[in-house]
Amino acid sequence: MTKMINLNADIAEGWGAYDIGNDAELMKIIKSASIACGFHAGDANTMHRLCKLAKQEGVSIGAHPGFNDLWGFGRRRIQMKASDLEYMVAYQIGALQAMAQYAGLKVTHLKAHGALNNMAAEDEGYAMAIGRAIKTVDDDIIYVALSGSQMERAAIKLELRMAREGFPDRMYDDAGNLASRSIPGTVLKDPKAAGEHALRMVQDGEVLSMNGKRVKVRVDTLCVHGDEPTSVVVAGGIRKTLEAAGVSIVPLTEMKL
Amino acid sequence: MTKMINLNADIAEGWGAYDIGNDAELMKIIKSASIACGFHAGDANTMHRLCKLAKQEGVSIGAHPGFNDLWGFGRRRIQMKASDLEYMVAYQIGALQAMAQYAGLKVTHLKAHGALNNMAAEDEGYAMAIGRAIKTVDDDIIYVALSGSQMERAAIKLELRMAREGFPDRMYDDAGNLASRSIPGTVLKDPKAAGEHALRMVQDGEVLSMNGKRVKVRVDTLCVHGDEPTSVVVAGGIRKTLEAAGVSIVPLTEMKL
Amino acid sequence: MTKMINLNADIAEGWGAYDIGNDAELMKIIKSASIACGFHAGDANTMHRLCKLAKQEGVSIGAHPGFNDLWGFGRRRIQMKASDLEYMVAYQIGALQAMAQYAGLKVTHLKAHGALNNMAAEDEGYAMAIGRAIKTVDDDIIYVALSGSQMERAAIKLELRMAREGFPDRMYDDAGNLASRSIPGTVLKDPKAAGEHALRMVQDGEVLSMNGKRVKVRVDTLCVHGDEPTSVVVAGGIRKTLEAAGVSIVPLTEMKL
Amino acid sequence: MTKMINLNADIAEGWGAYDIGNDAELMKIIKSASIACGFHAGDANTMHRLCKLAKQEGVSIGAHPGFNDLWGFGRRRIQMKASDLEYMVAYQIGALQAMAQYAGLKVTHLKAHGALNNMAAEDEGYAMAIGRAIKTVDDDIIYVALSGSQMERAAIKLELRMAREGFPDRMYDDAGNLASRSIPGTVLKDPKAAGEHALRMVQDGEVLSMNGKRVKVRVDTLCVHGDEPTSVVVAGGIRKTLEAAGVSIVPLTEMKL
Repeated sequence: MTKMINLNADIAEGWGAYDIGNDAELMKIIKSASIACGFHAGDANTMHRLCKLAKQEGVSIGAHPGFNDLWGFGRRRIQMKASDLEYMVAYQIGALQAMAQYAGLKVTHLKAHGALNNMAAEDEGYAMAIGRAIKTVDDDIIYVALSGSQMERAAIKLELRMAREGFPDRMYDDAGNLASRSIPGTVLKDPKAAGEHALRMVQDGEVLSMNGKRVKVRVDTLCVHGDEPTSVVVAGGIRKTLEAAGVSIVPLTEMKL
Repeated sequence: MTKMINLNADIAEGWGAYDIGNDAELMKIIKSASIACGFHAGDANTMHRLCKLAKQEGVSIGAHPGFNDLWGFGRRRIQMKASDLEYMVAYQIGALQAMAQYAGLKVTHLKAHGALNNMAAEDEGYAMAIGRAIKTVDDDIIYVALSGSQMERAAIKLELRMAREGFPDRMYDDAGNLASRSIPGTVLKDPKAAGEHALRMVQDGEVLSMNGKRVKVRVDTLCVHGDEPTSVVVAGGIRKTLEAAGVSIVPLTEMKL
Repeated sequence: MTKMINLNADIAEGWGAYDIGNDAELMKIIKSASIACGFHAGDANTMHRLCKLAKQEGVSIGAHPGFNDLWGFGRRRIQMKASDLEYMVAYQIGALQAMAQYAGLKVTHLKAHGALNNMAAEDEGYAMAIGRAIKTVDDDIIYVALSGSQMERAAIKLELRMAREGFPDRMYDDAGNLASRSIPGTVLKDPKAAGEHALRMVQDGEVLSMNGKRVKVRVDTLCVHGDEPTSVVVAGGIRKTLEAAGVSIVPLTEMKL
Repeated sequence: MTKMINLNADIAEGWGAYDIGNDAELMKIIKSASIACGFHAGDANTMHRLCKLAKQEGVSIGAHPGFNDLWGFGRRRIQMKASDLEYMVAYQIGALQAMAQYAGLKVTHLKAHGALNNMAAEDEGYAMAIGRAIKTVDDDIIYVALSGSQMERAAIKLELRMAREGFPDRMYDDAGNLASRSIPGTVLKDPKAAGEHALRMVQDGEVLSMNGKRVKVRVDTLCVHGDEPTSVVVAGGIRKTLEAAGVSIVPLTEMKL
């Protein structure tokens, strides 16, 4: 039986006169796009443009909600009440659903952005708030969660569809967590190395940790990046290696979750 | 046959720590509420709270989109490209649709706010942009339009459901347009006078202009206000006079449009 | 020798169409006003109006910078780089200095708002960042600091003028820290009780803690509030009690710091 | 006697995670920089960085205030009360003055941005509001004005120092106004042609209009751009041609105004 995996990326991270990333190139590599929804990045125009492009490229779309912090690009941790957070996320999902209508697409997943994603990985209150927003607005939406995180638990508790996410351009520690970016060498910039890292995750359900240990990881979707020219090359390398090994790259909606 | 009319008001015009208006009192008088969607006022929390309250009071809800100008409360005219405007409006409709899910309600009408409403009344490009946003996001949404305005024409052109709006606490000129607020006496503060003004609109399809002339107006919905304590009293007076004359006050969704 | 003390309050906390607090009444009670600078509240119009009013009432003014979080009214903790914070504070000081020119006033103190004040009380990095902003923009500005906090230490380290702040409408614990608002009875709503609390701070340099223990506190300025009608009455009561005991209420600039 | 002219450019137009333009390269060509002040672009970090760079390159700095419209990059016309506008501009000047303290620089000129500049050129109320903001905050600040505009008149009326601005990469019409960008060929992309255009302005006080007519223009400062790689080349060409002809490029503060 053919192995299947999803490749996802964060897109639509420009705002107004500002642009960022390589959305057009990434869209040809990935099969699911997480679209910024206007709070940390991604105004209505950008959302509209990227929804249309996703349709054209056969890419499924998801909401990529973030903190209401354009200045900090959603990378600053903000402590707020769980209900404030929940409604803030629900609002962003709805906004994207409207923009998706322009492309005749449905919003089929949600992946939290930046500091919100990091906080929700650790904090049950945040993870549940995001889950409740999904459940209320559209309970078919797939909750993209770091494996082993509070988000994973929240998705299970709320009986939401969930996709576990792996990071093929990042090294893992022996516990199966992402190694800190601050440790030299933990961000892979070689397409071949990243491709092999990805393939091992998909085929064997494991990674070689930064200490060379084999560690189990479970992944339904692999996150690639487009921030720098090299990251698009890495993303392309990952896709190439997976396809060469017979792995089929599919939208998140086609994964068995 | 019983005459029917809708009473609507703008609500949810607070933001964050700020509150404004008398939403709870108004909700007991009106049958349709236009909810600010986060751009000129009305954050996600406020939208959530008012959707729940609308459900409880049997009030239908609509989007009340405005310019992205919290500082100016959406009262400043902003010149933008029609497509920017269209997506900005679509985004706000979607955001409210999500919040309405919390109350099990549908967004059934749209009324533009402040300077956006004023500009769209005069400017075909703006009026059509709002109409296209409605058409794309949910073409069942009723476009609330000033009678005789570009919005009315846009709704007809786009084959959208439309409700013509009257203002029972404002005097009209001989051409059937609203007299400027700057003319003394054109804002009615007496509940009885406003009630009679409203009744004449509903029963006779006309108003007595500020010059005492009988002028035809066509109204499906009457707008009342809650900005000041007196305006709630005026709104209550309008409802009372209409009901005393046997007019039935119904949600916009029950009007024959 | 006559005892002197300063009374301060946070003002200008409206924004755009929104108003909050009882600025005009408070201005007649206090002698120093901390003016919100546009980030968590207080737009340019509000700043202008309150500077003029301060001039008229003989009240000295200070910057009241907060996080860039209007939605959360600056009450949400945000984690940011110390340099981001420093420049954000410097920016707000400068903005107020310009508005103060309209009244012929100088900005003579700074008091951080809400979550920024709370974080800077505990976090050396934040406290020093605020201090460096003061030092760079105008090193005559008095740093208002909670007694015993990191802000107090930062002011000493940077050789800035500093005013220690007391809270006469709040109970203290046995360590001389503010008791949590969540403990019933720790917010004083009786003008007489608050007045006596204030007088003990000023005359004896101590408070009776919530457990009835006498605890040393050192205060140069007492903070009063205007959020609710009762708080203005409490503020008035504090001033009255102090003056009846012969304490002179003076601007912060007249205190020996 | 040596001819002198100033070269200015708009800089600091990034925001948060976003960057735009070629600030570092432009800073080596120009002698005066107009720094965005946080409303349409240019957050506190950007302002800080550019002030330091200006100091290092011997470039004088000015405020570049714009509308409170980050989404529209200050390019959308907004109708507001003159007093709102005045305080909004004063606020931005003050913010930059604070950031300039980090570099030991003074804010010595002001040039309005985008739609604000366009509106103030035509509208006496806007032009005077900007002038009053300058006069109040620091009446040594030079008001950069399009020759023949309402800003020029306002500066004269308010007895402010004023610098008339020319655009060497733009063609003029026979009346001495800028020809619309929409007319093909009116934006010069050839460094040599732009250099000759600039030189004629400086040496002869005239331009060759798009119809080949000689038209008088009076310029104290020439605006160059950095939006695209080619615009930096054009800016460099202008400087080179001027210097080759013996014209001295000086900060605005050294011009006789």
